Amino acid sequence: MKVLVVGANGQVGRHLIPLVSESGEHTAIAMVRKEEQAASYAAQGIETVVADLEGTVEELAKAAKGCEAIVFTAGSGGQTGYDKTLLIDLDGAGKMIEAAEKVGIQRFLMVSALQAHNRENWSDSIRPYYAAKHYADKLLEASGLTYTIIRPGGLLNEPGTGKVLAAPNLTRGSIPREDVARTVLAALTEERTYNKAFDLISGEDSIAEALQKL
Amino acid sequence: MKVLVVGANGQVGRHLIPLVSESGEHTAIAMVRKEEQAASYAAQGIETVVADLEGTVEELAKAAKGCEAIVFTAGSGGQTGYDKTLLIDLDGAGKMIEAAEKVGIQRFLMVSALQAHNRENWSDSIRPYYAAKHYADKLLEASGLTYTIIRPGGLLNEPGTGKVLAAPNLTRGSIPREDVARTVLAALTEERTYNKAFDLISGEDSIAEALQKL
Repeated sequence: MKVLVVGANGQVGRHLIPLVSESGEHTAIAMVRKEEQAASYAAQGIETVVADLEGTVEELAKAAKGCEAIVFTAGSGGQTGYDKTLLIDLDGAGKMIEAAEKVGIQRFLMVSALQAHNRENWSDSIRPYYAAKHYADKLLEASGLTYTIIRPGGLLNEPGTGKVLAAPNLTRGSIPREDVARTVLAALTEERTYNKAFDLISGEDSIAEALQKL
Repeated sequence: MKVLVVGANGQVGRHLIPLVSESGEHTAIAMVRKEEQAASYAAQGIETVVADLEGTVEELAKAAKGCEAIVFTAGSGGQTGYDKTLLIDLDGAGKMIEAAEKVGIQRFLMVSALQAHNRENWSDSIRPYYAAKHYADKLLEASGLTYTIIRPGGLLNEPGTGKVLAAPNLTRGSIPREDVARTVLAALTEERTYNKAFDLISGEDSIAEALQKL
C-alpha cells in the first residue's frame, strides 16, 4: 500500500517513515509542512508531499491522492497554544478525514492519546488537548472509513522493545515512540484492528500477539 | 415545554430566559455555573439549576432531567483562552448532547456562529473559535436528537427589530442578540426548523415568516 504519513516530521512520524519504507510491503509518502523538511526526506529516497494541515480540504485531498492509507500522527505539540490544538489536532484531523473521503482512501489510522475516550482520566494540566483528541477520534469513528485509533501512553524516546500491551481500556502507562510506530505499521493491514480503538502501553506481548488479542 | 437554557447568564441567555418564561407555552430553567447567578434568577421567579459545563456528563444529565428541550447558548467568551474554548464551547456542548441522550431529551437547539459550517468564511483572527463551533455543530447533527442549529451573524446589543433573514448560507451580516433569542423561542416548536442548520442575520421577514421559508 501507498501510505500517507501525516505528521512525518513529528517524533512518531520519524520512526514510522523508515519502518514503512523498509517493510517491503508498503511505500511511505511523507507529508510535511515545509519544503526543507521534504528535502531531508527526499535525500533519504523517501517520497514526499508538501501540504499544510491549516490549508483547505482540497489541498489535503490533492496531497493524499493516489495513496491507499493515511496515518495521522500530526499534532501542534507543546510549544504552541491551544489555538493550534484546535486548528491542527482537531480541525486538521477533521479535514484529513474529509480529504480521505473525497479521494476515496478507505483506510485511516489515528495516533491518539491514552484514555482520550475517557474524560475521567484526562490529565488536568492538559485537559483541552485531550478534548481535541477525543473529538478527532469521534469524528473518525463516525466517518465511513475503515479506522484504527491507537491511543499510546506517555511517549518515551528510549529504543523500542517490541513488547506491548493493547486493550480497550488501560488507565496508565508509557511506551517508546518506536514501539508506537511499529504498532502502527503492524495495524495497517491487520483486520483485527479495523474499526477499533485501543490504548497502547509497553507490555509483555509481541506487537502481532497484542493485536491478535483485540 | 420545560426548556433548559444552558448559558443562561450569557448575553443571549439573558434575553432568552424572560422570553421563554413570558411565552405562556414554555417554562425556562436557567442553568448557571454559580450559586449567586442562580439567586439573581430565583429572585425574578425563574427556576434555576446550578451545573458546570466543565463537570461530568452525569452532573449535566442530573441538571437536565425533567426538561423537554435544551438550548445551548453557552460559550467561554472572549475573556478566556482557547483552553476554555476547547473545554466549554466544544466539550461542554458534547457533554450536554450526551446528557440529553442519557435522560431522553429529544429536542436540542444550538446557538452557533454565522458560517461555522463553512471554513472558507471563518474570520482569521478567531479561526480556532470557529473550529470549536464547527465540531460542536457536527456532533449535534450526528446525534439522534431533533436539532436546530442557529448561526447568528455579528451579535449586537441594540434592541431587536423582530425582522430577520434566515437561510442555509449567508456570508455576512449582524443581528441584535434580542432577535437571536426571539428566533430561538420561535424555533423551539417550529417543525420547519427540525434537523436544520441555518445562518441568521437582520432582514425584512418576521421571525415566523423567516422560519417558514427554511
